[in-house]
Amino acid sequence: SSNIRLAVIPGDGIGTEVVAEGLKVLNAAGVKSETTEYDLGARRYHASGETLPDEVLDELRGYDAILLGAVGDPSVPPGVLERELLLRLRFELDHYVNLRPVKLFPGVATPLGQAGPEDIDMVVVREGTEGPYAGAGGVMRRGTPHEIATQESLNTAYGVERVVRYAFEKALARPRRKLTLVHKTNVLTYAGDLWARTVDRLSLEFPEVETDYCHVDAASMFFVSQPQRFDVIVTDNLFGDILTDIGAAVAGGIGLAASGNVNPARTAPSMFEPVHGSAPDIAGQGKADPTATILSVAMLLDHLGHTGTAARVEQAVADDLVERQSAWTARSTREIGDDIAARVAG
Amino acid sequence: SSNIRLAVIPGDGIGTEVVAEGLKVLNAAGVKSETTEYDLGARRYHASGETLPDEVLDELRGYDAILLGAVGDPSVPPGVLERELLLRLRFELDHYVNLRPVKLFPGVATPLGQAGPEDIDMVVVREGTEGPYAGAGGVMRRGTPHEIATQESLNTAYGVERVVRYAFEKALARPRRKLTLVHKTNVLTYAGDLWARTVDRLSLEFPEVETDYCHVDAASMFFVSQPQRFDVIVTDNLFGDILTDIGAAVAGGIGLAASGNVNPARTAPSMFEPVHGSAPDIAGQGKADPTATILSVAMLLDHLGHTGTAARVEQAVADDLVERQSAWTARSTREIGDDIAARVAG
Ligand SMILES: CC(C)[C@H](C(=O)O)[C@@H](O)C(=O)O
Ligand SMILES: CC(C)[C@H](C(=O)O)[C@@H](O)C(=O)O
Repeated sequence: SSNIRLAVIPGDGIGTEVVAEGLKVLNAAGVKSETTEYDLGARRYHASGETLPDEVLDELRGYDAILLGAVGDPSVPPGVLERELLLRLRFELDHYVNLRPVKLFPGVATPLGQAGPEDIDMVVVREGTEGPYAGAGGVMRRGTPHEIATQESLNTAYGVERVVRYAFEKALARPRRKLTLVHKTNVLTYAGDLWARTVDRLSLEFPEVETDYCHVDAASMFFVSQPQRFDVIVTDNLFGDILTDIGAAVAGGIGLAASGNVNPARTAPSMFEPVHGSAPDIAGQGKADPTATILSVAMLLDHLGHTGTAARVEQAVADDLVERQSAWTARSTREIGDDIAARVAG
Repeated sequence: SSNIRLAVIPGDGIGTEVVAEGLKVLNAAGVKSETTEYDLGARRYHASGETLPDEVLDELRGYDAILLGAVGDPSVPPGVLERELLLRLRFELDHYVNLRPVKLFPGVATPLGQAGPEDIDMVVVREGTEGPYAGAGGVMRRGTPHEIATQESLNTAYGVERVVRYAFEKALARPRRKLTLVHKTNVLTYAGDLWARTVDRLSLEFPEVETDYCHVDAASMFFVSQPQRFDVIVTDNLFGDILTDIGAAVAGGIGLAASGNVNPARTAPSMFEPVHGSAPDIAGQGKADPTATILSVAMLLDHLGHTGTAARVEQAVADDLVERQSAWTARSTREIGDDIAARVAG
C-alpha cells in the first residue's frame, strides 16, 4: 500500500523528545511513511516573529496527517503560540472533533483508590472549532479602574450538529451505546439550549443509543466519584478541555493521555497530539513519558485505516504498562520508546 | 447580644429537610435568632408564576443573613429558577465572593487512595456576580440550520479587583499564605489578561503572600493528583463552579460541601447554602446528609462575628464525622441533625 505522507511538528519543550519516540514506533510497526518536519513554535517565533505562516499552513494541507508534540514556552507571551499556532491549526484544518479517550489500562496506578480498568473506559468527543475558543471578545479602558474585558462563546447549529452526530456514531459503535451531553444549560441558557436541542433531535436518528445529560460541575465530580457513569461524552470546547484533564488524572496521568484533532469530513489532514503540554521544566532531560504520543500515533493509524496496526501499537503499550508496575528503575523517554517499538516490531 | 435576624429559603427537593437540621443546630448553639421562612422555588413558580418578586427581594435586604437549602426542579424549564431566583439573589445582593472551603475532615473517606486531611485543605474564592454567569448572549434563527447562540463572559476591573483583594486577605490570614489564580489565560486572552494583571498588581500590596498561576485544565487535574498544591484559590464564576465540585468529590462528597455567598462590603445580607442541589430523586425520604448545611450555618455564624460559636459547630461536625466511620447503620437526615445538635449543645 502507499506511503503515509506525514507532517511532523515537534514544537516546544518535551515535544521534540516524545515525537521522536512516536515516529520510532510508527517505523517499527512496518507502515511505510514519509515524514517532513516543520519548525514551528517558540524557537521560530523568537527568530522570525512567525507563528504559522500562510505558506506553511497551505503546505500542511497536502499531507495525510500531522503529528504534533507540544507548543508553548514561558518566553512567549501567554496565548500567542496557543492561539496563533495550535488553535489556528485546529480551526483552519477544521478539526471539529477533538477525540480524547479516557481509559485506565490494566496495571496503571490511578489516584482513585477503588477504581479499576472496568470503571474507567470512555471517550470524550470535544468540539474543536468554536465555543469559548473562538477568540471573540475584547477589552476597553485597559489598565484603568474602568476596564471591561469580554470573552464570547460562539455556537452554531452547523458546528454543534456535526460534532454531536459524530459522537452518536461513536457511541453506536461501542458496546454500551451511551452518550452523555455535558454542558451547563441552567446557566449558559442560549448555548446550552442549542446543544440540548441538537442532542434531542439527533437521538431520533439513533434510537439504539441511550442519551443522558449532566451539568459540567456534576460531570467533573462524577469523573472522580463515579467514572463508570460515562461511555461517550459530547461537550463543548472548554468543558472538554477541563474534563479531559480530569480524565487524564484519573486514568494514570497526563503522560498517558492521547488525542486526535479530527476532521471527519477529510477536507484537510487530521492532527494527533498528546494531551500534555511542552513541560519546559523537564525538557531535554529524557524524563518525559512518550506513551501519550505513541498512543496518539495509534489513533493516527486508526484514522488512516490501518486499524490492525493501530491495535497492535495499542496492545504493545498495554503490555508495556503492565510490565512497568513491577519495574525497579524508571526508564528514559528513549528507553520507553525503544521497548514499545521492540514489542510492536516483534 | 442581639438576635440574628435570619431569612430562610428552604427551596426545593431536599432543601427543606437539610435546612431544618441547620436551624436545629443553630438553636442548639445558643445564639439567639429570629427566623422568617420564605416560600420560593418550584412550588411558588407553579402556583403563581413568580420566582423572586421585587417586594420579597426588598424584604430580604433587611435581614442579617440568609440561609438557603437548594433550588431547582425537573418540572421547571432549565435555568428558570437558577437564573431568576438563585443567581438573581447572588447578583442583586452583590455576593461577589462565593466562598467554598475544600477540606478533608479526619475520618472521612475520599476517593483518592493516598490522600489524607493534611493534603486537602484549601479555600476556593469564586467570583459570584459576573463572568460567564452574567447571562449576556443571545440566539438567532433558533431551531434552523442557521442558528447561532452566543454566551458572553463579562469581566470588569471593579469586579475582579474586589474579589482578588478578598482572596489576598484570606490567604494572608492562613498559615501557608499562598494564593493561586486559576484561569485560562492562553485561550481566554482578554478576560485572562485582566485577571492576571489584577493579581500581579495587588501582589505588591501583599508581599507576604506567595502567588501562583494555574490553567483551569491543569488545576482540575491537580485537584485529583496533587491537592496539596493549593491553599487559597481565586477564580472566575464558572471555573469556580467546576473546581468546587471536584473539590467536593475529593473531600468526601457533595453531602459535606458548604458555601457562603458573601457580600464583604456588607451592603446587603450574605447567603449561606450547601453546594449540593435539590436532589429531587431522594427528596422527602430522610436520606439527604444535612452536614453541608450545618457547615454552612457555621460559616454564617462566623460571618456575623460569632467566631467562637462557629468553631464549636465545626468541631461538632468534625467529631460526628470521626464517629461516622465506625457506625453500623446509616442515620436519617434528622438523626444526623439531632446528633450534631446534641454535641453543640452539650
Ligand atoms: C494549549 C491549549 C491551548 C490546549 C487547549 O486548551 O485546547 C491544551 O490545553 C489542550 O487541551 O490541548
Ligand atoms: C444551580 C447552579 C446555578 C449553581 C451554580 O452554577 O452556581 C450551583 O451549581 C452552585 O454551584 O451553586
